[in-house]
Amino acid sequence: MKKIFRKEHASEKKEDEDEEFERSTRHCRCKHCPIIHRKKLTEIDIDRLEKKLKTVQYKIDEDVDQQLRELAEFVHIKTISDDVECLKETVKAIDLMANKLEKLNFKVEEFQINQRTTTCAEVPPQKVLFATYFSSPTKNTLLLYLFLDVFPTEEENSWFKNPFSLSDSDGILYGRGVTAGKGPAVCWLQTFRTWKNLYHDLPVNIKIICEAMHEVGSVGVHQIVESRTNFFDDVDYVIFSFNSWLNDERPVISCSLCGWASFGLEVRAGNKTLDSGIAGGLVYEPMTDLCHLMNSLVDDRHRVLVPGIDSMTRPIGQYEWQLLHQAEYGEYFYAYKEVLDVRRLKHEVTKIELLRNRWCKPSLTMHGVEGCYSGHGSQCALPLTVIGKFTIKLLPDQTVSHIHVYVQEYLNSKHAELKLLTDMHLMVIDGCDPYLWSMESKHMHGIRNAVSSVFRVEPKMSSLICPCLPMASFIRKTTKKTVIVIPFTNRADRRMQINESIPKSRFINNTKMYAGVLHELSLMPVRCKCDVIRDYCLRRGFGEILDHQMLPRQSAPPKKMKNLRRMTNIKTLTVLPQDYQDSNTKSNDAPTTKRRKSSFKKLLFRPTNILKSSK
Amino acid sequence: MKKIFRKEHASEKKEDEDEEFERSTRHCRCKHCPIIHRKKLTEIDIDRLEKKLKTVQYKIDEDVDQQLRELAEFVHIKTISDDVECLKETVKAIDLMANKLEKLNFKVEEFQINQRTTTCAEVPPQKVLFATYFSSPTKNTLLLYLFLDVFPTEEENSWFKNPFSLSDSDGILYGRGVTAGKGPAVCWLQTFRTWKNLYHDLPVNIKIICEAMHEVGSVGVHQIVESRTNFFDDVDYVIFSFNSWLNDERPVISCSLCGWASFGLEVRAGNKTLDSGIAGGLVYEPMTDLCHLMNSLVDDRHRVLVPGIDSMTRPIGQYEWQLLHQAEYGEYFYAYKEVLDVRRLKHEVTKIELLRNRWCKPSLTMHGVEGCYSGHGSQCALPLTVIGKFTIKLLPDQTVSHIHVYVQEYLNSKHAELKLLTDMHLMVIDGCDPYLWSMESKHMHGIRNAVSSVFRVEPKMSSLICPCLPMASFIRKTTKKTVIVIPFTNRADRRMQINESIPKSRFINNTKMYAGVLHELSLMPVRCKCDVIRDYCLRRGFGEILDHQMLPRQSAPPKKMKNLRRMTNIKTLTVLPQDYQDSNTKSNDAPTTKRRKSSFKKLLFRPTNILKSSK
Repeated sequence: MKKIFRKEHASEKKEDEDEEFERSTRHCRCKHCPIIHRKKLTEIDIDRLEKKLKTVQYKIDEDVDQQLRELAEFVHIKTISDDVECLKETVKAIDLMANKLEKLNFKVEEFQINQRTTTCAEVPPQKVLFATYFSSPTKNTLLLYLFLDVFPTEEENSWFKNPFSLSDSDGILYGRGVTAGKGPAVCWLQTFRTWKNLYHDLPVNIKIICEAMHEVGSVGVHQIVESRTNFFDDVDYVIFSFNSWLNDERPVISCSLCGWASFGLEVRAGNKTLDSGIAGGLVYEPMTDLCHLMNSLVDDRHRVLVPGIDSMTRPIGQYEWQLLHQAEYGEYFYAYKEVLDVRRLKHEVTKIELLRNRWCKPSLTMHGVEGCYSGHGSQCALPLTVIGKFTIKLLPDQTVSHIHVYVQEYLNSKHAELKLLTDMHLMVIDGCDPYLWSMESKHMHGIRNAVSSVFRVEPKMSSLICPCLPMASFIRKTTKKTVIVIPFTNRADRRMQINESIPKSRFINNTKMYAGVLHELSLMPVRCKCDVIRDYCLRRGFGEILDHQMLPRQSAPPKKMKNLRRMTNIKTLTVLPQDYQDSNTKSNDAPTTKRRKSSFKKLLFRPTNILKSSK
Repeated sequence: MKKIFRKEHASEKKEDEDEEFERSTRHCRCKHCPIIHRKKLTEIDIDRLEKKLKTVQYKIDEDVDQQLRELAEFVHIKTISDDVECLKETVKAIDLMANKLEKLNFKVEEFQINQRTTTCAEVPPQKVLFATYFSSPTKNTLLLYLFLDVFPTEEENSWFKNPFSLSDSDGILYGRGVTAGKGPAVCWLQTFRTWKNLYHDLPVNIKIICEAMHEVGSVGVHQIVESRTNFFDDVDYVIFSFNSWLNDERPVISCSLCGWASFGLEVRAGNKTLDSGIAGGLVYEPMTDLCHLMNSLVDDRHRVLVPGIDSMTRPIGQYEWQLLHQAEYGEYFYAYKEVLDVRRLKHEVTKIELLRNRWCKPSLTMHGVEGCYSGHGSQCALPLTVIGKFTIKLLPDQTVSHIHVYVQEYLNSKHAELKLLTDMHLMVIDGCDPYLWSMESKHMHGIRNAVSSVFRVEPKMSSLICPCLPMASFIRKTTKKTVIVIPFTNRADRRMQINESIPKSRFINNTKMYAGVLHELSLMPVRCKCDVIRDYCLRRGFGEILDHQMLPRQSAPPKKMKNLRRMTNIKTLTVLPQDYQDSNTKSNDAPTTKRRKSSFKKLLFRPTNILKSSK
């Protein structure tokens, strides 16, 4: 029954999608909207495009060495963002990335992260890259979130090899960052490069956010994203490469993100911090009361005591139970214990119970206490205002606001029951509702195709195995765009552990899968974005320029062209006319194959824009 | 009965003292030990010395303006040690102090405090002064602990006047630091200066430790004191000016210091700090268990639940009950609430109950949690090792080790009762046994005389009103020397509050009291210190030099003098011979009154050493 509901839900969504396309085109002000007037793709078109994809994937297989060299180049930079000493290196990695993207004709903008006040001046300011590759208004736009920093290596001596030097041993690539961050970034770069080398353009528009503070909570990145929301106006899909495989055989694609509600429980008896020598025994100490209140949240078996904490979560259907059954990671518990470096796991008796708690149940974590003394050694501070911090993980269809009410009511009752004489105040410091999307929508089918065609296995789709990806949730919350989470690593790859590694074959297959994702999303219907960006349809990207160079002069009367140019806001376009003239005069005789060396490199006179050329 | 016991105890002590003197002289290797062969003071001697004191006190009264100028000079330096911005100023204050002490012929050594690792390079290194004034081996040696930093001013606008500019309004001195730190330091300086100006020497040897990190827990000072224990070898008494008056009329002199046991309760499930998104719901969270354990220490009425926490404390005798009754601070509760900035006090219904809890009962304070996230805002850290910090205040005759056993046993039983699956480990991070001394000893009589002769009121002595002075306890613990705590402020003086102030009359009287303390302690029997410092009795200080200058040449044969010089380790002496010769040739004709301007300033040719001259 559950499944039927979801299918209905999905078909509704599909209708929704179509309706949205209809509506958006109605807003279009341009006379000859390229999206309204576009030709539907025929079977032959699709065949031709698929052949292109095959060529790209074949080329990726051929250029393995180049890709590994690039990976080695990134791995070599010691980008441990948790280590102040390494913050120069993270900047270097970002600069390298910017350089590489610029070579691929991306327009790159850098934003400086506001320095944390406690650090010294010698720490270089951290940067976030916003990169744009605009091919055509008639193509879908993908946003990629990449990061280049890595988790600390702990004892470097425990690694087989130097963690910051890529090594290939028995077809397995060892190096810090190969499974997350640097690995996906290099795969995307390779995909773009191969496509551009072969066809001089990409099948979709690309936007990239690339940072190097991911492993330390993306400090400051949130503010930059929030202040630049217009960057996301024309984005259709946001892609994250965070998913793990379910087991050795089967990739999994999540269709949900869990949310969270971070609470601050303030207990106040006064404003100062006193000296326990002077005031000890005299005042009602908020730390004591905070302990009482925090304690009432969880029992000694670590069960959350707030009534209603489980309410509004979706029941686990038969399909999800099966998934939990199928999930196997070889020596499952041991691996987990090793990752987490603990001796005992909750619910470690049964795998399913453990996984259900991990993925499908809300949980409460206490982080610490603000306002208290948390340093090393002893101090005689007696804080009079302390804020206990805890977070409740939320699952679809819970919301931050309803959990807030439950927690507030429960703590109020406890405060009254304990007759505490200090003041209590509960606040939501940070919160994000969980997010669930249909696994039956067109683009999810596309992603599934992209994965299955490369790995030759049907990926598992799930909306109840709920990953917690704060950055994904944050970008979803800020931009309201469609999120896609695709798999990259297997649990055996030892992400965040010593001897992080990835099999070379899967690494290359991931690159090919990325190419497949570009291809599949390029086939999705395109929405006219003139409703959010004025005259979006009149913009000209690389695709249009290439097309224009192919067409006879008269097809684009000079007057109208000028007008077009004025309207567009793509910087690269403004330098084009001279280039264009140059190239026209210089290499008019052999324009088809030879690469040009003008400032507008790699621009060729061969028609490559898919949609235009398929007219 | 209690009182009888204490009297017995005191008389025992007195015998002990005499025996110690006997024993120490037996160790003396010098043939003509100046202490063994010293003449006992006669009534006439004492009368003469008392007249000297009166002259000094009279002069202090006369030089009020100079003293206030000096106080203003110190108050003007914004030495808030809690504010990184002001750390340059604290160094300036220390330098000023060093300068002033050097002018008074103190030998000053500066020690750099090890920089805290988190601060930046631009923060100047903090310093501790160790100053020595050595008059004679035949005099007692006092150690003074001074500090020059101040408590933050909070809103400076709420002050009547600028807190860093001394203002005198209706005979009351306003300014940050006048009641503690800078106030006592200036009073001591004035006492020394007056005495030196009148008699060219001090009646005792003085050692000073002066720092400017007192209000932030004397970070780093402890290490320096511990590494320089030989500095304390010849100290007889350590003086702290920390006591408050019992009420407006009556100063109080404490004869005890409370102790403390700072515990770290480590709860460990693993070594890493995880991400609550990844590990939430999977692991047994130590924060939760820590909350349970900390919670079991104190009930919701803030009563300590550890059995035996009150054991081994002394019962309150009739005398102490009377003291508690007499203690009155005008609007007592309001003042206290204002100091602490709280709305409610524990036991605020009756004054005696409140004071008993403040002074005469152990208490437990929770400081915070190490290893958790204690910053502002939200973070998703899930720490796997956390250390809860709490301190139990100890009273005579409790000891750290026995309280440790009680707490350990109690927490073990709780851990078992709650069946917690995380590991628990209790450690004593820092501890100091309480310290109780006899109020009937000779030197305490002396201090009582010094106070009562100036303030014309008998001070209350108490060993159960137990002040908590961590630095005093620490120095006592490290040096094992006799501690004296003398009163300086009244509760109405608003120490640590807005509009800190002290009546000018009491400020001057405190200076006179200090002079009295020097006088009284100079009358105490002197111990030969050759048992701890080789050939201590042969050392020559300012007293001996002055005496020598008075004696005919032949009384000190040149050969022996050389020998003496070689043995002594006082630096100023090594530069003396040239100076001495210079002065002899230059100002032989009028040596009695005119100050000399050689590098060895203020050294005069008049006999001033009390004990020598009284022979």
